[in-house]
Amino acid sequence: MQTLNWNELNEAERAAALRRPAQNNDANIRAAVAAIQEQVRTGGLDALLALTERFDGVRLASLAVASEAIDAASARVSNSLKSAMQTAKANIERFHRAQIPVEIDIETQAGVRCQQITRPIASVGLYIPGGSAPLFSTVLMLAVPAKIASCHRITLCSPPPIADEILYAARLCGIDSVYQIGGAQAVFALAYGSGGVPKAEKIFGPGNAYVTEAKRQVQQSGTAIDMPAGPSEVLIIADEAANPAFVAADLLSQAEHGADSQVMLVTPSRELARQVAQETAAQLAALPRAATARQALAHSRIIIAADLAQCVAISNAYAPEHLIVQTAAPRALLPELDNAGSIFLGAYSPESMGDYASGTNHVLPTYGYSKTHSSLGLADFSKRMTVQELSPQGFAALAATVEQLAAAEHLDAHKNAVSVRLVALQTAQIAPANSEGGAE
Amino acid sequence: MQTLNWNELNEAERAAALRRPAQNNDANIRAAVAAIQEQVRTGGLDALLALTERFDGVRLASLAVASEAIDAASARVSNSLKSAMQTAKANIERFHRAQIPVEIDIETQAGVRCQQITRPIASVGLYIPGGSAPLFSTVLMLAVPAKIASCHRITLCSPPPIADEILYAARLCGIDSVYQIGGAQAVFALAYGSGGVPKAEKIFGPGNAYVTEAKRQVQQSGTAIDMPAGPSEVLIIADEAANPAFVAADLLSQAEHGADSQVMLVTPSRELARQVAQETAAQLAALPRAATARQALAHSRIIIAADLAQCVAISNAYAPEHLIVQTAAPRALLPELDNAGSIFLGAYSPESMGDYASGTNHVLPTYGYSKTHSSLGLADFSKRMTVQELSPQGFAALAATVEQLAAAEHLDAHKNAVSVRLVALQTAQIAPANSEGGAE
Repeated sequence: MQTLNWNELNEAERAAALRRPAQNNDANIRAAVAAIQEQVRTGGLDALLALTERFDGVRLASLAVASEAIDAASARVSNSLKSAMQTAKANIERFHRAQIPVEIDIETQAGVRCQQITRPIASVGLYIPGGSAPLFSTVLMLAVPAKIASCHRITLCSPPPIADEILYAARLCGIDSVYQIGGAQAVFALAYGSGGVPKAEKIFGPGNAYVTEAKRQVQQSGTAIDMPAGPSEVLIIADEAANPAFVAADLLSQAEHGADSQVMLVTPSRELARQVAQETAAQLAALPRAATARQALAHSRIIIAADLAQCVAISNAYAPEHLIVQTAAPRALLPELDNAGSIFLGAYSPESMGDYASGTNHVLPTYGYSKTHSSLGLADFSKRMTVQELSPQGFAALAATVEQLAAAEHLDAHKNAVSVRLVALQTAQIAPANSEGGAE
Repeated sequence: MQTLNWNELNEAERAAALRRPAQNNDANIRAAVAAIQEQVRTGGLDALLALTERFDGVRLASLAVASEAIDAASARVSNSLKSAMQTAKANIERFHRAQIPVEIDIETQAGVRCQQITRPIASVGLYIPGGSAPLFSTVLMLAVPAKIASCHRITLCSPPPIADEILYAARLCGIDSVYQIGGAQAVFALAYGSGGVPKAEKIFGPGNAYVTEAKRQVQQSGTAIDMPAGPSEVLIIADEAANPAFVAADLLSQAEHGADSQVMLVTPSRELARQVAQETAAQLAALPRAATARQALAHSRIIIAADLAQCVAISNAYAPEHLIVQTAAPRALLPELDNAGSIFLGAYSPESMGDYASGTNHVLPTYGYSKTHSSLGLADFSKRMTVQELSPQGFAALAATVEQLAAAEHLDAHKNAVSVRLVALQTAQIAPANSEGGAE
């Protein structure tokens, strides 16, 4: 990890210090994914089975995972892991239930009732990557809010062979609709409802460059996606009160995610910076995924700032996915922290807690998107609709205003929709609202 | 307007009946907009002034509109129009203030504090189209929530010459940063902060095919946008209790928006269908924008359904931007209405009321996007962040769970971030949480 002194950097060097690894935006990937899209659109189930054989090396008889197979997989998961997943699920459920919105129902003026109500997104698709590590935690993070939001149809896709832990997590969350299909072809199957995979109106979940590109492509043609994707990252603000071993462990827990992960320590303490660098090297040696973490550390940085206020400013400019604050008074900084996906306050709030079990969601905006995008929550599984209902009196009181505004925008038919009602009201001799003010 | 009997249509015909006019997805537009993007990126202010001269026919000395010019424009707006705008703004303000979120702050388990907080998007750009009709109402719809959300920087762009009404609306909403620039070049100027236009992190507002394409392009490179765009549309559910003149006026108020607008009447009453068709023809004749409305009506439909339940099902499948319900008991249908941007209940709730002054937002998901996207609201001008803070006891109680979950995902550094703390806690002889249960 490179150590930089912020106040010795010029503007260009500061920008470079906060630059993320370049995102994969490869024309070859775009073309390959577009070809898969075409195959799925035109070839249906046969194309999906062929693509699965090609990419996952297995010729399946069926994409759907039978309920009995989920039963059998669940039976193979140890009771202690089941219990840990249940604990995590209970906390995730509590935090996401707390997000159930209160309906808004007000009169903006007498007789003009305005409401904001929410409805679930009817059909959602959850994508869980395959690979050596079974990301069952992401099943919990996506399925729990989808269930609380009451999405009518929740479909989970993951490449074969699907790990027992993922199938158990699906079962634990009450998801019966599981399909063994991965990669870009899974995204297109969900978007078009191909090969018996239920059509999803919105697709959630992480994935490799092909999955990310497929999500980008389906978004262009009308399927919603959770959020733009990028490599995972953490920024830690720490002062001399921090335990260097804790800080180093947190940096490494992010660095092991992938070679393109980025980890940043921002501190006003030169001494802490030195100790963390030492600790990171020591802990790294013992890690099974040291090779990956080492690559991530190669483009990671320790930044020495003048004081905590400058640390906060640097963090806000970087807009990290995960922000850990290990200072003497971490909560005191919270009001100034503007841009982050999720914030971890204090020595005993490592990112791992939020990744798995504190209750917050671990699907978060990366790559600076926390400036504009929210951490995944219940709101992402539903949509807000507004409702208005005007009484004849409420209508009459607002009619002249709307007639005038519509006329000024030269929208005569808009005006006329008010005028025809006003005439009808007057003809019907219903007292207009201004007669209510008779006491004046 | 074509009249169709739903139960006489086969599946393909039903799909065709609910099909929208094809969206403009012209390669020429994409290429022209990409060229403008390149010009703005490399040419800065000079490029913006040249593009403005080319597209708007005016050579400007400066893009920024001086405060004195806004003063002078405001002075030219009639007092009665000002008063109407103030009424509209007050209602919009009330409804959007009601959307201020309650912070979530709970313990998911003892010692595990989880919060959801919101922060404004720091810098937002509001685009207001030019043309013959000054869309000052859209200024109110975008600027009022941006102000309530406390966005630090709100920049309004509109092509020259900017109408007095737009400048007054900006002033009324407390926006001082106004730039006379339009089209795709305005979107790119906001996205890159070119030519002295403040850089915006999110861009809001309607526009023509070039503006829409520019928003699509900047979204690909990291600038957020409000929502995908499409032509405006309305669907009306009405029964024999409806006033045919009201229904016709509402259909026409949508049809006058543009030749690509679509208006739909869905009714169980053949008699109402007949009367509305007659009324629409009669009212159309008197409209200044009859030519536009006539084009919109050419691809609009009256659909006869078996009953109100089928009307609701058709509406949910269509997922209209605006949904007007004029039936004997409109509110009774609300629980079944799943997909719409904004709903207008009853005879005295024409769309015009929501377009201008009821208080709801008129920026709504079109083109079927109401299945997955929300009506514009306060939430779109801010983002949700989560926060967690674990006490040593809360941490200790959850530590074994997270260690086990991390190990099962083969993420050893994640596990280690917990283990190093657990060791430190035990060394410090701080009692772990399970010792609290001593009375058991």
